[in-house]
Amino acid sequence: MAIFGGIEAGGTKFVCGIGTGPDDLVTTRIPTTSPEATVAEAVAWIAEKSGRLSAVGIGSFGPVDLRSGYITSTPKAAWRNYDLAGAVGKGLGVPVRFDTDVNAAVLGEARWGAARGVSNCLYLTVGTGIGGGAIVGGQIVHGLTHPEMGHIRIPHDSIADPYGGGCPYHGDCLEGLASGPAIEARWGVPGGYLPRDHPAWVLEARYLALGIANLICTLSPERILIGGGVMRQSQLYEMVRSEVERILSRYVEKLPPIVTPGLGEFSGVLGALALAKQHA
Amino acid sequence: MAIFGGIEAGGTKFVCGIGTGPDDLVTTRIPTTSPEATVAEAVAWIAEKSGRLSAVGIGSFGPVDLRSGYITSTPKAAWRNYDLAGAVGKGLGVPVRFDTDVNAAVLGEARWGAARGVSNCLYLTVGTGIGGGAIVGGQIVHGLTHPEMGHIRIPHDSIADPYGGGCPYHGDCLEGLASGPAIEARWGVPGGYLPRDHPAWVLEARYLALGIANLICTLSPERILIGGGVMRQSQLYEMVRSEVERILSRYVEKLPPIVTPGLGEFSGVLGALALAKQHA
Repeated sequence: MAIFGGIEAGGTKFVCGIGTGPDDLVTTRIPTTSPEATVAEAVAWIAEKSGRLSAVGIGSFGPVDLRSGYITSTPKAAWRNYDLAGAVGKGLGVPVRFDTDVNAAVLGEARWGAARGVSNCLYLTVGTGIGGGAIVGGQIVHGLTHPEMGHIRIPHDSIADPYGGGCPYHGDCLEGLASGPAIEARWGVPGGYLPRDHPAWVLEARYLALGIANLICTLSPERILIGGGVMRQSQLYEMVRSEVERILSRYVEKLPPIVTPGLGEFSGVLGALALAKQHA
Repeated sequence: MAIFGGIEAGGTKFVCGIGTGPDDLVTTRIPTTSPEATVAEAVAWIAEKSGRLSAVGIGSFGPVDLRSGYITSTPKAAWRNYDLAGAVGKGLGVPVRFDTDVNAAVLGEARWGAARGVSNCLYLTVGTGIGGGAIVGGQIVHGLTHPEMGHIRIPHDSIADPYGGGCPYHGDCLEGLASGPAIEARWGVPGGYLPRDHPAWVLEARYLALGIANLICTLSPERILIGGGVMRQSQLYEMVRSEVERILSRYVEKLPPIVTPGLGEFSGVLGALALAKQHA
């Protein structure tokens, strides 16, 4: 039977997996150090565990160039203009499918997780940054480049919330206002130290809902999955749902369910595996 | 040879066409009155002109229910909950393909107009309202319902622009701030009476660019087409391009061309014809 490899290439760790799906998935974590050392370790682990490998998928932190498989203008200097897909493919001697981390995650969730059974869905992660991947008509959304949903602009009432936003490129875009670091910068402590009924979460739900309302108006997804560290504040789900309804109500009559991802921390690596299987 | 019918069903007129594409297209315009009278006239014209018809496509004003082919909650009371696809299909005795007006327009432009040759494109119309249709991976974007891109929220500086927005549902959404009626409400005269260097156009370009930046971050289109009455102010194209670049610059490295539609006033009816051809 064909065995596939998947790599979720993150800025702090690489999650590597082999198998054919969630039932036989075996994974390991490798800290992200230099490109050469990290890739060598990932390749060695996959090669050793898998025996015969059919293909490997990579869901990478970015920004990336999907056509070439390079990581491009990342602030992590050693990884800038690095041919990640090429290095992994050369190391393993198998075909590589390469995409963004969030595109891999939405594919994993569509294949095996909380977005099974729908052809149009959206995956958002809200953590150190905010990223999104979408599936439309059963296919991952790609275009001129890849989506950068975290950087959409939303209304920001600077009187109610004087924090200027933390995005180095756009200031108060969605990520600038609602990522984990934005919460910490605004309130002086990481979100995890704030009580569940702190006003921080009302504001957070408001910003996330404004962003999600825009994504609903643009993509009309059948289901929306939100993961990432900030969403460990599980009270946010219901707050975001009711705020999205308030923002769009009476106009968009059917609203998609907003739910947690089904694969937990394995959305990305399973999505990378699903990418590899698409090759075969 | 198979002949197809297309109807661009608008709130003020129905544009009906028969043919196989732009080269042999024959069209007529029918004022939108009651559903029964308008559809009867459209059906009679198409039946008389076409002889044997293979299928008919409809691009309709909305909101619509794509699954049933009904116009739903329109303010035009006589058209509310009207089975437009059913009435046309019954009248002509041929299969019907039904979609929104802007989805038909983007399909027409992708097939024969300014979006030929790309698999991912976006069509926006800026007039009485603002609407958008997108093609992703060669397919029209559909999901839970249809996109309502005109209703995305964008930053609105109420001190620089105290106009509260004209959308009856959302106030200062993109359509509320940047449609033709919003321009007229803000400045006291229709946009057509304002000089090309009036500050109205700086503000208009700013709002359109904020909306388009969000759509680029979400869909990553390879090309963007903007039509509609407001865009007769052709100076807006260059203003919108440079404003989009300013808003996204340094982050999204490749920006899509922003151009005029290639089929002029026939994007919609040709798109409806293309819908009919998809059936065949």
